[in-house]
Order: sequence, then C-alpha cells, then structure tokens
Amino acid sequence: MLMEGTTETRGQEQTEKSEQAVIKIGNYPVMESALEVLTILGNKKKVVLQSRGNSIPNAVAVANIITEKMLKGNSKVQKINLDTVEAAGIGNMTSTIEIILIKN
Amino acid sequence: MLMEGTTETRGQEQTEKSEQAVIKIGNYPVMESALEVLTILGNKKKVVLQSRGNSIPNAVAVANIITEKMLKGNSKVQKINLDTVEAAGIGNMTSTIEIILIKN
Repeated sequence: MLMEGTTETRGQEQTEKSEQAVIKIGNYPVMESALEVLTILGNKKKVVLQSRGNSIPNAVAVANIITEKMLKGNSKVQKINLDTVEAAGIGNMTSTIEIILIKN
Repeated sequence: MLMEGTTETRGQEQTEKSEQAVIKIGNYPVMESALEVLTILGNKKKVVLQSRGNSIPNAVAVANIITEKMLKGNSKVQKINLDTVEAAGIGNMTSTIEIILIKN
C-alpha cells in the first residue's frame, strides 16, 4: 500500500519538475540559445542551463542576455553550481557549470 | 574633521579588504593558478577569482581544484557573480565571472 504522503510529494515533486526545463548549452550561436531559453521561460518558471568545458562562457553569456537584456527585471540567477566530471578511462577532468534562472 | 565613525568603518573595511585577495585567471595552466590561489589562501580568508570570455572555464577549474581537492572540506564557493563588459567602441560583449572562495 503506497503511503498517502509519498504519492502526494511525488505529485508535488512532479509539478516542481514540470515547472522547470534543463537546457544543455554547447557551442552554438549564443543568441540562438538565448531565444530558445526565452521561449521556454514563456511557459516555465525555471530554466537550468547546463554546460561544460569550453562551452561554459556561452552559458554565462546566455544567462547575462536573459537577465540583463531580454527579461531584465523579470528574471534572475537563482543559483550557480560548479562541478567537475571525469572522462571515463582517460582521467582528465572537465569543469561543468549549472546556472539556474528563474522568472520573478 | 573626519567623523570617528567613518575612520572606524574605513579601518574595519580595510581589515576586511586586507583579508581578501583578487586574482585574475587568464589562459595559463590551471594547476599553476590553483597553486597560486592555495598559497594566498594560506594567509588570507577570502580569494576572489576574476575571469572573462574564454578563460572562464579556467576559473571554474581552479575553483573546483581548490574546493574539491587541495582544500577539500576546508574551503567553499561563497558566491558567484556573472556580468557582461562591453569592449570600448567595438560594442561586442564579453561575459565575466567572479567566483568568491572562502576558507572555513
């Protein structure tokens, strides 16, 4: 018998999950990525920008374009997470960044 | 006549200022920068890593090396600031990052 509480939190977790979108920022033109984020923020409360290695400056640029230009005053950086991932077997480390943008 | 209060806060501000160091992270080998940060954190409480454009991944890597390896458990990322600077005259924008590391 599933405990009432657990289904409810899962349901709540699901609504939280469905109010956010994760976008991987790679080496594409920054303005294209920014427009994509803008469209998603049209119907989601939170967008998580994920990037790694040499694409990190693109993720920073997209976050700046959204919060300082396109949605100035209506969005902000909620949190930034830095981490490192190890490429399997080869052992060299790659930096990763996660920039969480939210609509005010 | 300088108000007592102002000299005192300036003095206090000075001690706060002298307890931190600002380091510009450019395109040098990441391990060299990390060792420099480690030495400075030997006698300062706070180090501000500043970087821009394509050097941003290096600053993220240095922060990860310090907090996840060299000073694991004794240091953490206090705050991260993202911004954009406009190159004079040419008008193209460059992303900047400021990662504030503190010793626990």
